[in-house]
Amino acid sequence: MGSLNDIGVAAGINILSAVGFLLVFAVVRIQPINDRVYFPKWYLKGTRSSPRHIGNVLSKFVNADVSTYLRFLNWMPAALKMPEPELIEHAGLDSAVYVRIYLLGLKIFVPITVLAFAVLVPVNWTSATLGDDEEGLSYDQIDKLSISNLGPGSKRFWVHIGMAYVFTFWTFYVLYHEYKVITTMRLHFLANQNRRPDQFTVLVRNIPVDPDETVGEHVEHFFAVNHREHYLSHQVAYNANALASLVKKKKGLQNWLVYYENQHAKNPEKELTIKTGLWGLWGEKVDALQHYKTTIEELCKQEDEGRQKVISDPKAIMPAAFVSFNSQWGAAVCAQTQQTSNPTVWLTEWAPEPRDVYWPNLAIPFVELSIRRLIMAVALFFLTFFFMVPIALVQSVANLDDIERVLPFLKPIIERNGPRSVIQGFLPGIALKIFLIFLPTILMAMSKIEGHVSLSGLERKTASKYFLFIFVNVFLGSVVAGTAFQQLNSFIHQSTNKIPETIGESIPMKATFFITYIMVDGWAGIAAEVLRLKPLIMFHIKNTFLVRTEQDREQAMDPGSLEFGSTEPRIQLYFLLGLVYAVVTPIILPFIIVFFGLAYLVFRHQIINVYNQQYESGAQFWPDVHGRIVTALVISQILLIGLLSTQEADQSTVALLPLPVLAIWFHYVCKGRFEPAYIKFPLQAGSKRILLISSPYITADDIHIVSNVKRELRLMFAGGHGEGHAATGKRPDAEPERVPQGRIRAPRLPQR
Amino acid sequence: MGSLNDIGVAAGINILSAVGFLLVFAVVRIQPINDRVYFPKWYLKGTRSSPRHIGNVLSKFVNADVSTYLRFLNWMPAALKMPEPELIEHAGLDSAVYVRIYLLGLKIFVPITVLAFAVLVPVNWTSATLGDDEEGLSYDQIDKLSISNLGPGSKRFWVHIGMAYVFTFWTFYVLYHEYKVITTMRLHFLANQNRRPDQFTVLVRNIPVDPDETVGEHVEHFFAVNHREHYLSHQVAYNANALASLVKKKKGLQNWLVYYENQHAKNPEKELTIKTGLWGLWGEKVDALQHYKTTIEELCKQEDEGRQKVISDPKAIMPAAFVSFNSQWGAAVCAQTQQTSNPTVWLTEWAPEPRDVYWPNLAIPFVELSIRRLIMAVALFFLTFFFMVPIALVQSVANLDDIERVLPFLKPIIERNGPRSVIQGFLPGIALKIFLIFLPTILMAMSKIEGHVSLSGLERKTASKYFLFIFVNVFLGSVVAGTAFQQLNSFIHQSTNKIPETIGESIPMKATFFITYIMVDGWAGIAAEVLRLKPLIMFHIKNTFLVRTEQDREQAMDPGSLEFGSTEPRIQLYFLLGLVYAVVTPIILPFIIVFFGLAYLVFRHQIINVYNQQYESGAQFWPDVHGRIVTALVISQILLIGLLSTQEADQSTVALLPLPVLAIWFHYVCKGRFEPAYIKFPLQAGSKRILLISSPYITADDIHIVSNVKRELRLMFAGGHGEGHAATGKRPDAEPERVPQGRIRAPRLPQR
Repeated sequence: MGSLNDIGVAAGINILSAVGFLLVFAVVRIQPINDRVYFPKWYLKGTRSSPRHIGNVLSKFVNADVSTYLRFLNWMPAALKMPEPELIEHAGLDSAVYVRIYLLGLKIFVPITVLAFAVLVPVNWTSATLGDDEEGLSYDQIDKLSISNLGPGSKRFWVHIGMAYVFTFWTFYVLYHEYKVITTMRLHFLANQNRRPDQFTVLVRNIPVDPDETVGEHVEHFFAVNHREHYLSHQVAYNANALASLVKKKKGLQNWLVYYENQHAKNPEKELTIKTGLWGLWGEKVDALQHYKTTIEELCKQEDEGRQKVISDPKAIMPAAFVSFNSQWGAAVCAQTQQTSNPTVWLTEWAPEPRDVYWPNLAIPFVELSIRRLIMAVALFFLTFFFMVPIALVQSVANLDDIERVLPFLKPIIERNGPRSVIQGFLPGIALKIFLIFLPTILMAMSKIEGHVSLSGLERKTASKYFLFIFVNVFLGSVVAGTAFQQLNSFIHQSTNKIPETIGESIPMKATFFITYIMVDGWAGIAAEVLRLKPLIMFHIKNTFLVRTEQDREQAMDPGSLEFGSTEPRIQLYFLLGLVYAVVTPIILPFIIVFFGLAYLVFRHQIINVYNQQYESGAQFWPDVHGRIVTALVISQILLIGLLSTQEADQSTVALLPLPVLAIWFHYVCKGRFEPAYIKFPLQAGSKRILLISSPYITADDIHIVSNVKRELRLMFAGGHGEGHAATGKRPDAEPERVPQGRIRAPRLPQR
Repeated sequence: MGSLNDIGVAAGINILSAVGFLLVFAVVRIQPINDRVYFPKWYLKGTRSSPRHIGNVLSKFVNADVSTYLRFLNWMPAALKMPEPELIEHAGLDSAVYVRIYLLGLKIFVPITVLAFAVLVPVNWTSATLGDDEEGLSYDQIDKLSISNLGPGSKRFWVHIGMAYVFTFWTFYVLYHEYKVITTMRLHFLANQNRRPDQFTVLVRNIPVDPDETVGEHVEHFFAVNHREHYLSHQVAYNANALASLVKKKKGLQNWLVYYENQHAKNPEKELTIKTGLWGLWGEKVDALQHYKTTIEELCKQEDEGRQKVISDPKAIMPAAFVSFNSQWGAAVCAQTQQTSNPTVWLTEWAPEPRDVYWPNLAIPFVELSIRRLIMAVALFFLTFFFMVPIALVQSVANLDDIERVLPFLKPIIERNGPRSVIQGFLPGIALKIFLIFLPTILMAMSKIEGHVSLSGLERKTASKYFLFIFVNVFLGSVVAGTAFQQLNSFIHQSTNKIPETIGESIPMKATFFITYIMVDGWAGIAAEVLRLKPLIMFHIKNTFLVRTEQDREQAMDPGSLEFGSTEPRIQLYFLLGLVYAVVTPIILPFIIVFFGLAYLVFRHQIINVYNQQYESGAQFWPDVHGRIVTALVISQILLIGLLSTQEADQSTVALLPLPVLAIWFHYVCKGRFEPAYIKFPLQAGSKRILLISSPYITADDIHIVSNVKRELRLMFAGGHGEGHAATGKRPDAEPERVPQGRIRAPRLPQR
């Protein structure tokens, strides 16, 4: 275990690198050339249009205003300045609540730290069991501050048990209060968004086949009969893959057209010609403008034909539809009740936001869904516990001697000492690193296979899986050295109550490791996040080589988003570490507090200036966040019991047993008290509010496409024919359009 | 281990006793004097009024018709003859579905037995490992038929593994099919009962306090606003304990009045006087008829005053109400949705049947409810694993030497040899036996504390608890000798994967024990059930000493009911035994089949002729029954894995691992597919059916009493003033009364 000195050195390095990142960021962000990388959100909002234009050409790229350099840390107070209601307005509730997770970390751990340093540290320090003079064993100062200093059978363990209770109840209090606040925020947010169409719309899946009617007619008849007074309209989902590729092609051509038009405007004399053959390298020379115009026109026609074909083709109709109601009350009734005696057809649920719908999963049959979930559960188990197997395989294939045998001509290169050691040293690590980089993608793919219908749901499910992975492979894997599979193997061969003992026993010894981990992953990692190195580089590469039109430049921005599925489980690791070590080795707590504080600052800045969320779920993820913190709490309590039971403190162990029971009970209380607000919609709140707008689900020429191409495309297409209308799917607060109340509006036929 | 001979002897004894019970039953049941014991259901239905009256006085008591003795086994085919729809009509869906559990046992185990005897028994028998000549060990014939005969590492285990798969899939098939059939039966049953008031009524609990309004006004305003088009009426629950005791007193006096009127009618000359003092032993002599008439009149007045007082006293009003709607659709909407943004107030759920309501639990606040559940969960854990502790305590107190010391005057009696050995031998057993007799009552009390609001819910929760107890203490306790606490202790000190091994290993050795258990508890026990020894004796005692009026005789009948909470978990033990031993020792299966067959016969007879169910839940217990059978299946698979892993058959163990995963998945599929039909009410089915009757919840002078006295009283009172109206609570299919549709009917004020 490292001594205080080692930690000091590590801290120094990490603080330096973190400060370095922050300094670089401070300088880089005020250069006009990087403006689109660090303020994309404002560009997307339309409030910032281009870099500062005052001054000469150089000032377009480099900031020469010295005064701004002096205020280079300005972004920090600026990030904190925006009040929460404005933040919600600006970035959405999801983002605003997301940064509250960091705040929650501060709320939980700052008082715990104060108390732990006031009570536990002195108690540990003054116990003399691990004195340096005894036995000459290399116990270091960290251990003198930890519970290990007490020695077996000490009466002082009662202090730790008392503190475990205090910490637990404090955590309960903060969690309960936070859940309450966020529930209120959510309900308030939903109530204020009068015109959100998804509050009037229900997603209906597994529509049974009717031999005499099309899906559309069937839906209309069913709801017109069963929800007579509230049914307004519906929109069936179509499978329009072929159409989507047409749209994509047209979009590319339109971009070229804009480019050549710009060229033409700059230099009207020059003749713009292109070759019609492959990649424009050979073939007949034609006038570029003319060529693109005619091709686009041709494509428009094809598109219309395709659209007609999709609508008239029964095979393209999916057994899923969005049904809108004329009041929230009607929609709530439909979404929250069972429609027929067979619970596997006419499944209704609240429709996700238009932007939030994951189209490919709308049409999965009920039985297939349960088979998919079974397979994914088994796959997750294997992924978590056996992920080292394929990596070890890759690593052994990457063995240099094998490569030499298979590809003998590489021998001279490999035999050299330089490359050899590099490859031998790095290859195994690289295989693992690549796997870990792709892990969130893999988990997301698994969630998609499970068949959830909203992006927010996918993110939530991915986060659960990722948390399991992190807990098993990062936390347990670090505490009990060895791969997850080895652990699993040793655990099932071990006595049941030995498992918490084994883990609990090694907990104090790993404190130094985790402190280092927090500094590397938490401090430096968060500082690197604010610098956005990858988007910065990518933007400049794209800007130099690919950007031809304003639209291209907009696309090159890549504002990114919060990526709940991969970032939230990592925060949870800090909660877990904090709760586990609060009683055992309180010295770890200040490091965690610094992490939470820094991360809060950075992410608040990012959601204000950078990230562009793809959807808005109204903080629907909070029950998951809450649940995982309670899980971490239970784990910490069980491990503490395990640890104490190895310290010949049997009565004290028994005294801790009520804690996990209480924590589980607390979880159920909170679940019953708050969770319904995240699933159901209270009938009282907006009971008779009437839907006034034509929602994106029911726009007349709206064909929702189930396809595998990118979502944006589909959304763009859903709204109309060109980029100009792309926002139908993205702008739920569009101009309201009055719908005759109470009357059922027949779905309009697609116009042209 | 017993040999086949031992089992033969045990079987002989038990068959004899079972046949003896049946013979006695056959003779006793046709005696007119016992008619009310064996056919109470028909008396309650009003289709049978008194014993056969033909012939002389003797024939009132003894059946002298010889021909009926010859047909003494007639009841068996008669029990099977009634077709199921008629059975549902006659005894209710609960009872009809309950006997289907036995039928399900037959459906699962008959094919499994055939297959096991065709395949597994020959395979086991021809394996020569446990030959009698080898080593002279006392392996017996039972073991030669079991899996133990194969010996470690045998290739023949693959046959057993294959059979485990076949049995599992067969069980899946039967369970799925049965679930489907019973769900259809339930929906059909509910749809046919047009006028069941609980289908239009919602129970609202946790009504928040309003400073300006009474509970009744608050409820009316809330629902009139939020469910404007469907709200019909409501009935607040009152706490009327004082009133209930008045009613009870009046009822007793009325019975005496009837008695004296009968006396007077028989012998008009005789003067009937009673003494007004204690127990009628001293005091002033008055005319009996006159006395009772005036007293009853007086009580009627008091009762009316009390009723007025209860209605006007705000303290007597409970924050719970039954709200009725003018359509099933409206009620479904209200019951299945959340009313306000705070999910802890205005909790709505489908109202239980009027007979099914458990009144004392209506008014428990939300937080108290969750605390109660926490405490009961902890209590259940201790009861299950530590129930031996208090019993051992009692037993040690009951130690004779201690008794001698405390009560020395008993010494001469105790010192005698006869009583001493009897007491020493029986006392410990008696303490345990008494505990086991009271166990269902204890568990029911725990369920009541948990705060469920319907009797059927209480029974279901009790059954879950009882099943846990039986599984731990009867099944595991028999397989691994020792108390549950010792097991728990040894299990937590044992390797996790050793637990199934330890249990699995002892499974084959306990086959003989369980065969004997099945014969004693199953065969003879069921045969004793049909004889109804306790009700028979009690009826004759009461009839001789206490019965004065026809009403008394009716009350002395005690038809009993199915007691789902205590009988169903015992059936589940047979499912568990059958599934565990199907692969291991198939010889046990025929015994289980005999049990299921006999029990089916007996219980079908009992529900037709004897039992009088207190409520009708529409087979709401089926998901529990299904879930426990799947649990038994998973347990059997895990134990088989444990057993095989001790037989040096590692690959085969791995081949079994998918089974529990599949079983758990199967459970979730069935849950998703069928369970909603037991919780929710489909909107389509009865969507616009209008409530035409005044339901028992909303009868005008209806005060529902929360009290601790017997339920019947309250129900009687709920309906009106005398016995004559007692059925309001019991007869939901009363004369329909038209209610103006669509208009809100103000709750009528109590008349009188």
